[in-house]
Amino acid sequence: MTDDKLMRRAIQLAKKGRGKVSPNPMVGCVVEKDGDIIGEGYHEKFGKAHAEVVALEKAGSEAENATLYVNLEPCNCHSKTGACTDEIIEAGINKVVTAMEDPNPEINGQGIEQLRNAGIEVDVGILEEEAKRLNRGFIKVMKEGRPWLTLKLALTTDGYIGDSTGKSKWITSNDSLKYVRDSRARHDSVMVGRGTVMKDNPSLLPNNKEKFIPYRILIDESLTIPYKVNLVNDDYTDRTIILTADDEKEKRWNEFEKRHINIVQTNRLDIGWIDLYAGLEDIAEEGVTSIYCEGGGRLAGSLIERGLVDELQIFIAPKIIGEGIKSFSGIKKPLDDAIQLQWNEVKEFGQDIMLKGKLA
Amino acid sequence: MTDDKLMRRAIQLAKKGRGKVSPNPMVGCVVEKDGDIIGEGYHEKFGKAHAEVVALEKAGSEAENATLYVNLEPCNCHSKTGACTDEIIEAGINKVVTAMEDPNPEINGQGIEQLRNAGIEVDVGILEEEAKRLNRGFIKVMKEGRPWLTLKLALTTDGYIGDSTGKSKWITSNDSLKYVRDSRARHDSVMVGRGTVMKDNPSLLPNNKEKFIPYRILIDESLTIPYKVNLVNDDYTDRTIILTADDEKEKRWNEFEKRHINIVQTNRLDIGWIDLYAGLEDIAEEGVTSIYCEGGGRLAGSLIERGLVDELQIFIAPKIIGEGIKSFSGIKKPLDDAIQLQWNEVKEFGQDIMLKGKLA
Repeated sequence: MTDDKLMRRAIQLAKKGRGKVSPNPMVGCVVEKDGDIIGEGYHEKFGKAHAEVVALEKAGSEAENATLYVNLEPCNCHSKTGACTDEIIEAGINKVVTAMEDPNPEINGQGIEQLRNAGIEVDVGILEEEAKRLNRGFIKVMKEGRPWLTLKLALTTDGYIGDSTGKSKWITSNDSLKYVRDSRARHDSVMVGRGTVMKDNPSLLPNNKEKFIPYRILIDESLTIPYKVNLVNDDYTDRTIILTADDEKEKRWNEFEKRHINIVQTNRLDIGWIDLYAGLEDIAEEGVTSIYCEGGGRLAGSLIERGLVDELQIFIAPKIIGEGIKSFSGIKKPLDDAIQLQWNEVKEFGQDIMLKGKLA
Repeated sequence: MTDDKLMRRAIQLAKKGRGKVSPNPMVGCVVEKDGDIIGEGYHEKFGKAHAEVVALEKAGSEAENATLYVNLEPCNCHSKTGACTDEIIEAGINKVVTAMEDPNPEINGQGIEQLRNAGIEVDVGILEEEAKRLNRGFIKVMKEGRPWLTLKLALTTDGYIGDSTGKSKWITSNDSLKYVRDSRARHDSVMVGRGTVMKDNPSLLPNNKEKFIPYRILIDESLTIPYKVNLVNDDYTDRTIILTADDEKEKRWNEFEKRHINIVQTNRLDIGWIDLYAGLEDIAEEGVTSIYCEGGGRLAGSLIERGLVDELQIFIAPKIIGEGIKSFSGIKKPLDDAIQLQWNEVKEFGQDIMLKGKLA
C-alpha cells in the first residue's frame, strides 16, 4: 500500500469524529507493517483517547518497527491521555508519516522534533491539502481565534434571497436543500440571524439527525426572540446557542437556561448591531470551530464586509422575480471598490447552479 | 468519408455566409463521388447563387450519380437563381443527404418530395441539431415572424448590472468581454435600450470588424437620442437601426436618414413604452433574423416578461456591491410565480462564470 492510500485511510477514520471532538481536531491513525494494517483508530470524542493511542493499543507488541500514519502531527504535550509522542517512542515505531504540523502553538513542530530526536524517521506533508481541509476549523481557531465560517446564500438569478413579500421558501431545488443539510453536518454549528428565524422559523437540522446535530447559533442582539420558535422550543434546544449583546433581561436568560440553551454574551457596536468580530471569538471559546451561516441578508452583508467569511456557497436558482430581499444588505460600494470574490468550484444541483468561492 | 463528416463540411461552408445572407438561411453544399469531394460551395450573400448551384457548377459533368450533402432542404421554388431541385435532378445526382427540412412554409418538405418523385434517394436528419442551431434565426422568423433573441447580462454576484452611481464598466473580465464581442458576430444584430447608450455610449462592434458588422439596434421610443453618441455618429452608422414609436420629429428623421441610419417605426403600448412584440416583428421585416441584446435592465425586464427571450447569457462576476441597478426592472413577482429559467450550460471566462439558459 502506498503512503497516499494509508494516509487516506487515516483521514477517513478521522472523519468519524466529526462534530464530537471539537474543539479538538479530527485525527485518524493507521499502523502498518510489511504491507498489512496491524492497528488503526481515531479520536472518537472530546476527552477520549487520541487516535495514535487507540491504534497502537490495537497493534500491541506488533507495533515494533512498524510505520505509523496520522493526519496531524502527534502531540508532545501532556493531554488528557498522555503525550502521543511518548507512546509512539515506547511502542518502538520505526517511522511516522504525517500530513501536516499541528498549528497549535504549544505543539507546532515540537512533536516531530521529539520523534526525530528519538531516532524515528518522520515524513511530513503526505495529503497535506486534504488534511488541512478536514481540520480547517481547528486550524482557523488556532491561528486566528475565530471559527471557520462558510456563508451559504440561495439566490434568484437576479440576486434576491426572498421575494417582495418576504418569502424565501423555497428559492432552490430539493437537490440543493439536501446538499445544504449535508453541509450543516460538515460544520460544528449552523448560524442564522433573528430576522431569518422570524420569517422562516427554521430547525437547521442535518439530514441525518442520529449521527450528530450541529450547534444552532442564533444572533439575537437584544434577546427578544419569541419562546415558541423552533430553535428555542424543539427537542434539540441543548444544541442551541444564542449570541446576544443583552445584559438586562434576567427573566429571559433564566427561561432560556432552563431550556438548556447556551447564551453567549458579546459586545455591541456603537451602531447598535452586535460586534460579530468579538462574537465569533466568543463562539470559538465555546468549543465551536466551524460555522455554516444561512443568512439572512443583514448578517451576510455584515460578515462579508468585515472579512469574516472563509467560504461562500452561492446557489443560483433559475428564477427571476424582479424585486425582493437583497442578498447583502448594509453595503453600498462603487464598482471600483467592490468586494472581490474568487470562484473555486461550480456544481449543478438539480435545476440550480452552486458557485463555491472565497474572498479574493 | 462518413455522412457526418461530409455534412459537417457543408455546415462549415454555410457559416462563411454569416451576416451576409440574412434573411436567407446559411447554406453549404458538398458533392461527393467515390469518396472524393468533387464540388462544394455556399450561399455567399443575399441575392447571390444558392449553395447547391455553386457546388454543382464546380462538379460539372462529374455530378452524374454523385451524392449531394446540404444542411437545408433544397428549395423547389423559383428563387432568384432558379429552383435548386431542378438543378439537382438535371445534374443527375443519385442521392441527396440533408440535415433538416426547410421551415419556410412555401417549401417545407416539397423540395424533398420533388427529388424523391424524380427517383433520387433522400436522407433527412443527419446532424439535424447542429443545422438547426446554425439557422435558429431563420427558423424563428419563418415560424414566428420574430428574430431569435439572445439576452446577455453581466451581473455582480448580488445581481446588479451597475453600481449605485450608474457605472457598469466593467463588471466582467476581459475574457467575458471577448466572448461577448464574438457573440455579437454570431447574430445579425446587437440591441440596446436608450438608457444604456446614455450611460455607456457603446459602439457594439465585434472583435473582427473586417468580416462583418452586425446591425446595431437602438430602442428609442421618442427619438430623442443625442446626435453625438457613437451609434449614430461613428463610421458604421449604415449598420444602425433605430426602433422608435415616434411619428412627429420630421427634422430628426431626416438627419438620421442622412446618416444612412435605418429608422423602423413601430407601435407604442398604452403605458408609453414601445411595443416590443410588434417591434421585433418589424425588425424581422428588415431582414434581421437574430438579435444579441445587451440591456439595460428595463429592456431585459420587458423582454423576459413578454417571453421574447430565446437564450440567456448571464455572466456572474465575483463582485459584491450591496446596492446598484437592478438587472430586470419593471417586474415584481412573488416567488411562487417567478419567471422560470432552465440552465443549459456553464462556462468559466477568466474570473467570471457564464450561465447559458432559456425560459422554461
